[in-house]
Order: sequence, then structure tokens, then C-alpha cells
Amino acid sequence: MREVEGSVTAPLGYQAAGVFCNIKRLGTGKGSDRGPKPDLALIVSDRPALVAGMFTTNQVVAAPVKVCREVVRRGVARAVVANSGNANACTGPQGLADARTMARVAAEVLGIRPQEVLVASTGRIGVPLPMENVEAGIREAARALGRGAPFGAMAAQAIMTSDTRPKEVAYEWTVGGRTYRLGGIAKGAGMIHPRMSPTGRRPAPLPRHATMLAFLTTDASVERRWLQAALTGAVAASFNCITVDGDMSTNDTVLLLANGAAGNDPWTVRSRGFRQFESALHRACLELARMIVRDGEGVHRVVTVRVFGARNARDADAAARAVANSPLVKTSWHGGDPNWGRIMDALGYSTAQVVETKVDIGYAAPGSKDVLWCVKRGRPTSVPFEELCRAVAPTEFELHIRLNLGRGRAVMYAADLTEAYVDFNKGDVTNPASLGG
Amino acid sequence: MREVEGSVTAPLGYQAAGVFCNIKRLGTGKGSDRGPKPDLALIVSDRPALVAGMFTTNQVVAAPVKVCREVVRRGVARAVVANSGNANACTGPQGLADARTMARVAAEVLGIRPQEVLVASTGRIGVPLPMENVEAGIREAARALGRGAPFGAMAAQAIMTSDTRPKEVAYEWTVGGRTYRLGGIAKGAGMIHPRMSPTGRRPAPLPRHATMLAFLTTDASVERRWLQAALTGAVAASFNCITVDGDMSTNDTVLLLANGAAGNDPWTVRSRGFRQFESALHRACLELARMIVRDGEGVHRVVTVRVFGARNARDADAAARAVANSPLVKTSWHGGDPNWGRIMDALGYSTAQVVETKVDIGYAAPGSKDVLWCVKRGRPTSVPFEELCRAVAPTEFELHIRLNLGRGRAVMYAADLTEAYVDFNKGDVTNPASLGG
Repeated sequence: MREVEGSVTAPLGYQAAGVFCNIKRLGTGKGSDRGPKPDLALIVSDRPALVAGMFTTNQVVAAPVKVCREVVRRGVARAVVANSGNANACTGPQGLADARTMARVAAEVLGIRPQEVLVASTGRIGVPLPMENVEAGIREAARALGRGAPFGAMAAQAIMTSDTRPKEVAYEWTVGGRTYRLGGIAKGAGMIHPRMSPTGRRPAPLPRHATMLAFLTTDASVERRWLQAALTGAVAASFNCITVDGDMSTNDTVLLLANGAAGNDPWTVRSRGFRQFESALHRACLELARMIVRDGEGVHRVVTVRVFGARNARDADAAARAVANSPLVKTSWHGGDPNWGRIMDALGYSTAQVVETKVDIGYAAPGSKDVLWCVKRGRPTSVPFEELCRAVAPTEFELHIRLNLGRGRAVMYAADLTEAYVDFNKGDVTNPASLGG
Repeated sequence: MREVEGSVTAPLGYQAAGVFCNIKRLGTGKGSDRGPKPDLALIVSDRPALVAGMFTTNQVVAAPVKVCREVVRRGVARAVVANSGNANACTGPQGLADARTMARVAAEVLGIRPQEVLVASTGRIGVPLPMENVEAGIREAARALGRGAPFGAMAAQAIMTSDTRPKEVAYEWTVGGRTYRLGGIAKGAGMIHPRMSPTGRRPAPLPRHATMLAFLTTDASVERRWLQAALTGAVAASFNCITVDGDMSTNDTVLLLANGAAGNDPWTVRSRGFRQFESALHRACLELARMIVRDGEGVHRVVTVRVFGARNARDADAAARAVANSPLVKTSWHGGDPNWGRIMDALGYSTAQVVETKVDIGYAAPGSKDVLWCVKRGRPTSVPFEELCRAVAPTEFELHIRLNLGRGRAVMYAADLTEAYVDFNKGDVTNPASLGG
């Protein structure tokens, strides 16, 4: 498997565009010298594609998520239309009508059926969509569609909200002499702690999260059931393992389109090509997920929290999330303070079983197995404070926690908590355009 | 019932002191011109007092909490010795030995039994107590004991960590011609989200919290069983309803001593005086709890979150806690942004049942029933943005949430999330004395 240029337009048979239609209704003259950032994305498959999806488990669900769930239930899609700047959440019946109108208008200009159009929105909650702008944007995007990497890049830019950079990946691999591709784009930044399920039904226990969107395309053909199974597994190990602020969004959505343009017979779990497809999908989701954490609002340090030896997988997950979402642990990461007391405290109040005298805590460089243990069996080791400070000084490091109670393990990709996060999210009420989702 | 001067020394038969013994081992010359703040408190009852206690439900429990639980189980105490600057948590067998030594030294100098001495600590986790300083401090405190309000005030100062001001209350009331008094001191500031139980056993569901200590004294006589029942009820409606940062501490402790110096026969729940005692205790706990929130680390705004109409009490509590601990809701409070979308989002990811189209959200002045509704049945009302901004501009306001699904209600006393909180808690690794708990 190789990394290739581009993203959603890297696989055969996909076009994309990103245009500016002023969803936030800013005054003119906004944006950089190069003009304002695009805020409406369109991704189109030349042929009907099978589709799988993962959606927020928040009980308050944005209108576009409801529309997507219907399309995914039917299983076939031709296009994704997505806007940034407005979440179309808590917008009542008008919001649902607006989401359907987005699908209808896209279908009209693309000459396809509205039932084949997926819809996504991200931005401020509770504000009606400016439909005149959205409709004009969709029409313009349809005219702007194209096949190369720059078109995928425009779509990646269009879905950004507080993201500082677009997030794109693409991979290519060969099975039995035939080449396949899988690409994707994503956005994150704030309200990031997704826990999605295929139906939006809630797994137990339920943690907290933020708006992230990811759209993935492949030219492989995969049976619908196994397409969803592969996406469910990949999201569980990637997007559902990230947290910036612990706030789960009303809009979290991951969509995967498989249009079969590469020409294979549809794969099942038993097919020779399926494993490689699955590993490309896992890699794409994990890479995009980690890009989201790295580019989270105000994020300075990114920490991979690895929990081992929990009583079971659920306990491991609970322990990792408690540490990854503790404001005091997150501020100490920001300060470069190897404060294991706060980690122990967070483990202690998690719903995971924890025995203080069994806990080991240590630090490692990303991907390294060489762990510098600062706590063994609940007691501090003799490693000097300065050496621990050096271990938590890099902008990325790993935190290893061994509970030594069983075989459960979990990983969370977490961010620190900085003054910049607070400053960004408090907004400026005198400038409503500054107010976040 | 009247408010009176003083705190733990307001009831008859109690002495207190607060002295500086340099627990953090700062260099000389630290502190203000008036000398450094006291860091060791001693409270002594002239006669054996019945005692009730509430303790952290964190699985990682500080050594002094273990010692207190034993004393409370026996039911009789004569003294409380407490230090700030070091939590004596995650300190292993040596920490437990140190906590017992604190009790033993206090007993020795006071001429009482070590089993009658309650112990509390607050400060950084994982650092051994400087026992030489602590022992010298206890001896000095015993010499400094006194009965008036200034002595209670010194004890209140001695337990402060990042608190900017001492927290004291005292009340007096008359039943059947006899006068009774109840007073208390508390400290909070960071790691504030207590959920205590009498045994340290965990209620379900388990939220997250921080270190708070409160010591209460009364000269009424109350049967041990009802003393504990009254304290359990008062803490459930006060200290267990506050949150600054959602991090629950290893050290949270509330102690109540009743020495009977007022001369009544011991009250039970059926006694004529019990109701008034109970209401004085509730008032003292609530007042101290709210002082803790107002003086939380970096806190600018204090918000009372009131949830009504939840399916049941547990749902109401879960909904209130989700809103009160959401980083995005808390930063919007800081910014004076009446962002109801983030509140709806937090309700949606809480474990409480929430139906978007039934939710009402509004603001009121403290204690007022005059609610300015910004959302009714899930939809924004016509109240202008500027008017909502004015409702969330004061440093204290109430947030009313009606779920309209049942009769469950709950209250949380919450704080905003500010840059100052982050700045304070990130600390400065080049100055270990700056590093928090």
C-alpha cells in the first residue's frame, strides 16, 4: 500500500468541488487576499456507489444527519453535499426541510435522484441555513466539479470551520494485478469527542464528543454489509478514539462511498482483496483522526493515552477517556508538567476498576516501546523530575498506563487544554461571526 | 436563625489555631509583608464530640481520608489537624504512617487519644509530607489555640491552597429557651467536583470532582446516627452539587463535630430542635459550597444550573452535570455568549433522556422566578440576542432547563472556564512550588 497524491478524487470515477457561498453571511472584503475560504463542498460519483455511514450518538441530532441515515439505510448514493459555517442543528422542521432541499437542489443540477444525495453541515447550532446562499453555492459547485487532486483539496477546504489546515489522505494498493484507491477528507477543531454508531443508536457507556466530518471514497467494490462492517471497525479504532475537549457534537458524520470503478467483483469478508481494503480504510481513518487532534482548537501538545491491563475492554476505554478528558491532566500537558498525581486521580474517579498499588504510569516517544516509568505499582520511581519533564516536552508523546488487573486495553488520541482554546471558544459577542458552534 | 461572627470557634467549647510550618518548603522571605499564610490548622473540642463525615468516592484515596474514615466509624473525636500544600495522596505506606503520626503528635500535645484525632491534607499529590515541619507545626498550633473568631479565621486561612480568600460561616438559633451554634470553614479552588459518601463507597452513576475540605462544629448534641444522616443530606444538596473543573479529588472531606456544650439532651430526628439544627447545617454547607465555586481557580462567572422535568432525579442530575462540566458551555459563559446550542448539545450527550422538541432553556437573576426563555420546545424564542447577552452578563446568573419529560429536578452550582484557570493549572515546571495538586 502506498500513499498517493490527493484525497476523495484519487479513486477512479469521483469528482469534487469547493466553492464560497457566504454561509456565515459575512460582509464583503472578508478573508485573505486570495478571497474567502470555500464553505460548500460537493463530491460526486460517476456511477451509483454503495454507501456506509457512522453518525453521532447525541440525542440531539442535526437535520443533515437524519437525512444521511435514510440514505445509508437504503445503501446507495451518488453525491455528498456539505457546508461549513452553520450546523443546521436545533433548527426544527425548517432545518429538516432545508437539509432535504440541499439534497434536492444537488440532485437537480447533477441529474440524479435526491434519495442518492448525502448531506452534511458543521458550524454554529440553532441558526437557520441561509438557503439562498446554499442553493447558489450548490449550483456553482456543480459547475466547478473536477477530477484531479486540486478539486479534492477544494472540497477539503470547504468543510473546514476552525481548522487551520485541510485534512486529506489517499492510498493505492494492488491485488491480483488490479489497482485500487481509497481517499478521504476530514474536518474537526472543536466539539471533538466523537462516538458514532451506524444507526446513531448509543453504545453503553456513553462518553462525550465534538463536530467532526469525514468523507471517504474508494473505487473498489465491496458488498454493502461488509462495507459497513469495515467502516464501523475503522471508526471504532480511529475517530471514536479522539478527544479535543470532550464535547460530543450533534453532527458527527463519517461517510464511505464505494463505486466499484476499479472493476472488481464485489468483495465480502472472505475475498482476497478485502483485508487490504480494510487496512487501507483503517489507515485512512486513523490518519485523518490524528490530523483532527493535531489541529484541534488551541492544541499545542498531542498525547496518545495507552491503557493496558484493565479488567476488560470497557474499563480500559473508561480509564483512557477519564485521563484524556481531565481538565487538570490536560492543563499539565500544556505546561509540560509530568504530573502523575492528576493522572492517578483521574484513573481513580473513572468508572474503571483501579487499584492504586497496582498502577504503572510512564512516557514514551511516539511509536516507541521504550517507556520511561514514573510510577510503578502506585509509587514514584527514582527517575528524576527533570528527566520526566524532558519526556513530556515534545509536542507529541505517549502516555502508558498499566492497571495490572486484566487484559483490557484501549487507546485515546488526546490534546492538551490551552488558554488559546478558551480564548477561541469564549468568542466575542459583539462580533457574532466570531461565535463558534 | 441568625448569622453570627466567626466560624468553627463560634459554638461553645471549641478552640482553633492556624500556623505556618512551611509544608511546601519554600525558601525564606516568601509570602507577603505580613509573613507567609498559615498552612497547618488545628481545631479542638473541650470534650469528646460525636462526629460525622463525608469522603471522596475516588478509588484512589489519600492517606488522611483513610484515617478519618476509621475515626468516624468509631464515632467520637476531639480534634481535627489539617495541612495545606501537600495532599499526602499516592504516598504509599509511608503516607499512611505519616497521617497516623499527625494524629499521634496532636494527641500527645493535646493530652487526648490518637484515635480521637481527625486528619486532613490538601495540595500536591504524590509528594511525601515533610514530617519535621508538620510535627513542629502541630506543636506550635497547640500552643496557639484560642476561642474567639480570630482563631477560627486563622484555621480557615491555614487550609487554603489556591483559594484567594478564607471561607467561614456561623449561625445561632434558639429552641426552648436554649441557644445553639453551628459554624464551619472550607477550602476549594481547583479539582472541584466532589461526590462524597459517608463510607467512601461510590453511588452510581459516578461523576467527576476536586479537593475540597470543610470542617463544621456545633455545640448542640445530636445522636450519632442522626448527625450522620443530617450531614449526608446537607452534603448531597451542597458540596456534591458544585463543580469548578469536573475533576474529583482524592482528598475531599467534610467533617462535623457535635460536642453538646450547649447542654441539650441528644436530639434524634423526632426532637423538636432537630429540624432547626438540620436547616442550619444545610445553610452552612450550601453557603460554604457556593463560596468555593465563587473562589474557584480563574473563575469569573458563577452559574446555577437548574434542571426541571427530567424523567427522574438521576436523569436530572446527569443533565445538570453534563451542562455544568461542558468545556464549550463553560467557555461561552466566560465570553458572555448566550449560546444555547452548546447547552442543547451537552444535554443531548448526557446520559439523561432528552427530547429536543420538548426542551426549554432560559435565564434568570439569582433567586428570581422571572425566567427569560431563549428556547421553548427546542426552538429559539423571539427574545433578541442583545437581551440574552444582558441576561448572561452578570457575574452570577441562573440557567433554567426544563426537559418536560417527568418530575425529576436537580441543581448544580457551576463556574465558567477561563484562560486564568488554564494558566494557573499549567504551572511552571522551572518553579516546582508553582505546581498544583
